[in-house]
Amino acid sequence: MLLEALYHVPRDKWAYAYDTKTIHLRIRTKKNDIDSVVAMTGDKYDWDRTYFEITMEKAASDDMFDYWECGVRPKYKRLSYGFRIHAGDETVYMVDSGIGWDYPYPPGGYFEFPYIHEVDVFKVPAWAKEAVFYQIMTERFANGNPGISPDGTEAWGGKPEVDNFFGGDLQGVLDHLDDLVDLGINAIYFTPLFLSPSNHKYDTVDYKQVDPHFGDNELLKKVVDTCHAKGIRVILDAVFNHCSEDFPPFQDVLKHGEKSKYADWFHVNRFPCEIKDGIPTYDTFGFFGNMPKFNTANPEVKAYLLGVAEYWIKEIKLDGWRLDVANEIDHHFWRDFRQVVKKANPEAYIVGEVWSDSLIWLQGDQFDSVMNYPFADKVLEFFNGNMDGLTFANRIGSILMRYPQQTNEVVFNLLCSHDTPRLLTRVGEDIRRMKLTVVFLFTFMGTPCIFYGDEIGLTGDGDPDCRKCMEWDPKKRNQELYAFYQGMIALRKEHKALRQGRFRFLQANLHDPCIVYERADETMHFIVWINNSDTKRTLSHPIVTTDWIDAETQEPVKPANGTMHIDLEPYAYRILCRELKH
Amino acid sequence: MLLEALYHVPRDKWAYAYDTKTIHLRIRTKKNDIDSVVAMTGDKYDWDRTYFEITMEKAASDDMFDYWECGVRPKYKRLSYGFRIHAGDETVYMVDSGIGWDYPYPPGGYFEFPYIHEVDVFKVPAWAKEAVFYQIMTERFANGNPGISPDGTEAWGGKPEVDNFFGGDLQGVLDHLDDLVDLGINAIYFTPLFLSPSNHKYDTVDYKQVDPHFGDNELLKKVVDTCHAKGIRVILDAVFNHCSEDFPPFQDVLKHGEKSKYADWFHVNRFPCEIKDGIPTYDTFGFFGNMPKFNTANPEVKAYLLGVAEYWIKEIKLDGWRLDVANEIDHHFWRDFRQVVKKANPEAYIVGEVWSDSLIWLQGDQFDSVMNYPFADKVLEFFNGNMDGLTFANRIGSILMRYPQQTNEVVFNLLCSHDTPRLLTRVGEDIRRMKLTVVFLFTFMGTPCIFYGDEIGLTGDGDPDCRKCMEWDPKKRNQELYAFYQGMIALRKEHKALRQGRFRFLQANLHDPCIVYERADETMHFIVWINNSDTKRTLSHPIVTTDWIDAETQEPVKPANGTMHIDLEPYAYRILCRELKH
Repeated sequence: MLLEALYHVPRDKWAYAYDTKTIHLRIRTKKNDIDSVVAMTGDKYDWDRTYFEITMEKAASDDMFDYWECGVRPKYKRLSYGFRIHAGDETVYMVDSGIGWDYPYPPGGYFEFPYIHEVDVFKVPAWAKEAVFYQIMTERFANGNPGISPDGTEAWGGKPEVDNFFGGDLQGVLDHLDDLVDLGINAIYFTPLFLSPSNHKYDTVDYKQVDPHFGDNELLKKVVDTCHAKGIRVILDAVFNHCSEDFPPFQDVLKHGEKSKYADWFHVNRFPCEIKDGIPTYDTFGFFGNMPKFNTANPEVKAYLLGVAEYWIKEIKLDGWRLDVANEIDHHFWRDFRQVVKKANPEAYIVGEVWSDSLIWLQGDQFDSVMNYPFADKVLEFFNGNMDGLTFANRIGSILMRYPQQTNEVVFNLLCSHDTPRLLTRVGEDIRRMKLTVVFLFTFMGTPCIFYGDEIGLTGDGDPDCRKCMEWDPKKRNQELYAFYQGMIALRKEHKALRQGRFRFLQANLHDPCIVYERADETMHFIVWINNSDTKRTLSHPIVTTDWIDAETQEPVKPANGTMHIDLEPYAYRILCRELKH
Repeated sequence: MLLEALYHVPRDKWAYAYDTKTIHLRIRTKKNDIDSVVAMTGDKYDWDRTYFEITMEKAASDDMFDYWECGVRPKYKRLSYGFRIHAGDETVYMVDSGIGWDYPYPPGGYFEFPYIHEVDVFKVPAWAKEAVFYQIMTERFANGNPGISPDGTEAWGGKPEVDNFFGGDLQGVLDHLDDLVDLGINAIYFTPLFLSPSNHKYDTVDYKQVDPHFGDNELLKKVVDTCHAKGIRVILDAVFNHCSEDFPPFQDVLKHGEKSKYADWFHVNRFPCEIKDGIPTYDTFGFFGNMPKFNTANPEVKAYLLGVAEYWIKEIKLDGWRLDVANEIDHHFWRDFRQVVKKANPEAYIVGEVWSDSLIWLQGDQFDSVMNYPFADKVLEFFNGNMDGLTFANRIGSILMRYPQQTNEVVFNLLCSHDTPRLLTRVGEDIRRMKLTVVFLFTFMGTPCIFYGDEIGLTGDGDPDCRKCMEWDPKKRNQELYAFYQGMIALRKEHKALRQGRFRFLQANLHDPCIVYERADETMHFIVWINNSDTKRTLSHPIVTTDWIDAETQEPVKPANGTMHIDLEPYAYRILCRELKH
């Protein structure tokens, strides 16, 4: 047994309250090194009478490790625990005081989850587990009111540049809500809508005013009300890391320097605020002088921004916030943000923009979810032919073990966004490969999000090219792709097993680009077969049950002699399912 | 290179802001497996111009791992980083996106410490780094006013039972403050002082009233004022997990059941509150029905207890709180507690009682320190002859790597307390062994604490026997032991190197109970030689400098031919030092 590979700490994703009754424990071991792991649990104040052993399940694997998991429901909310690890004849014990071959006398020195406090339990909104998101950049979605388009607005469908405008607005969104209902989505994430000089509006000038080129506050309220009436939730982009240089308090600092009453609203390293050799004398987003960074520790700034967060929730019944550059803002701010937001709307969904390891924000006191860019990267790498099935399964295993289960259920899974090339472009404009990524997105754990226009075949390189105008001309829309998206969305929405069921790879092998995986809850069992290669393939897996159907066509599909054989064209997939009767 | 042994996460003790300019990074590798580790650092928005490599130092080792450490001072408060690990001809890279042999193109996929926020930096009080604590159980320290002793008070020096009284009080403490000045301590930790029926007073009836058998609030203020005048800081015990069953709100719940306006102040699982088959129908400390657990998530309870915390700081200028059963109270409560306490006194010292892994409370938002019981256990195990030098060094390495540097500087190191057997008893009443533990305590990192009476030779088994009356009869006090304590305290107080200097083992070997270790800062260098065996030993270590003196006797001690040889009687020690000239 490789003792150096064993890992567990009594906190964060390794030991957490899943709900007010259940503690999840995870332990890591060297891959394929261990036969079984048993959690030895009890209440330290009455160990013998509360002692309970739980055999852990192998929940995931990555390149180097296996991850074992179990849920424990302690009788008196308190839990002390250790692990007994078996490999062949060898037994090893792991407790807080160390790892060894001798049975550690309990409960002194054991790990502790001292008490389940409801207030500390990480709760995520239930609706986010059911959501299929659609990301809209309003400036590029539809121009519903040319009368409010900016001066110099270019013709719809032109080439996106860093600073040009096409006149998209909220009336355009309102006009097309039924199209979104037709597509099947039930949640919208809007990139910023508030007053700002740019087309992307990530540099806010007035946090309480909808940009007049988009409409007004009343119209936004109407959009949200209409969405709600159609069963669509709405979240907005909270750009609280920085503002526009035109934000009045920053203008005041530019004018009055350290005498400005807003001087401490920003991180000014040296007055006057200016740009010297490309480096601003004040902290900014990146080194962009036109995006001064807020001092979110200043109580006035904090009160102002938290006021904004609360205002829109109350004013338009907003369903949550996506937090821009969330990792560069202080934790005290986000903790108070969560309290204010959840008080205003206990079902609000809080999604942070963090590109790297995000666990520090996902412990119940800050965010519910993050934008899952690692997911996008790994899925694209695999379906672009740059890794085999085993490597892909390892990467996905690693992603599943990054966060507690609560976040896995609502992590914001995306394949592209306004900050990356378009999905179709990322797969070399191969619609077949694109569909495989979408199949995976919609049959995996987490909350999927579609970037507007992907569903009708928009292409585009990185920013600004990915921010093309939405195509509304039926002849220029890929109707077959659209129908495929409709089908995938409908399938996911119909089956809880695809949203919250257990995920497991059935086949994911070295030097083989094809995979087979399953999802299952107590009512339905899905098996997804994917030929991620450029030749015809027959994928086979031992299956004894005979009541499988094709989830898309409803045709029965039968195994032969205890093995299911699925013939697949190059880059084709098939989704089978069966009902589980009890 | 054993890749499974590599460990780093971009948070908690592995990556943290030590101050507003400096980020500490740590990485773990398999023991004796690696030649060197380089941190590759930069600002992700201007990587090439900010790129900087730092060679990490091996800071500690335990049974299985080496731990490497460095400080980074990023130019723009933002840090992206990866590690380059060398072993022989092999080079391995570790970044957020994984471990591998190929150079990962920066900064995408690198670890991030996104921005140093002053408000998030973990700050501990400076005075705690200089403190030598003395723990007093007032009931057992000195009876200064027999007129307020409880009915049935027994004669001073009798056998302590779970429920008997000896009449110790605050006047007794006041009368003996000069004795504590004589001993040399500069901080006192009082176990609970507030109104309570028990002798230990961990079951509080009135949180704002000093127990009348101890004195009154005015007298406590006088004690603290006098301490302050003598250069002694004072912390009290905050028993906020539970109260006494006589606490009026709980009495109200007993009486009125769920109709009581205090019904939600506690965790009542089933009304009425009663004890069924030994198990209370409400949550308690352990299963003690007379200690009902507070519902600290109830805003009224929270306001009440935080009010208590603030009250005493303001009322008597308290220097901090020791938090009883701290791990069973919710994190939201402790976060607010820290804010209230530090606002009332920015230099307040917050010490949690947590016996197992405590890192979750030591990230800057909750406690400054914890009672370091693992330290006591390992030190006692070693000096009782139950492990060799190498094992001890591994255990100490593990302890040093449990927490961030801030906590290591003020972690509450103790050798015994009111909850364990007495130190002298724990070492089999062998004064020589006891002295070695005390030498180690006073020459190690962290804030040492003496349990009242250890310094004059009190013995005692576990609670209640460890809670004997203080011995004031000069003939019954071990004067030689006392003088030894005086010397050790004075030495530590005189030399910053012993408080905050670097700690390193020079000799700690397999099958050898003797150790040699050093502490050093920029002005002084100490080497401590310990013969932890029952035979005479000569310990030798290569040393070329010749200006060493014995720190206790000031005698010069010279090496011979580049090696220092120190002759030691069984269970003897010697502390050498030299000034470092610059």
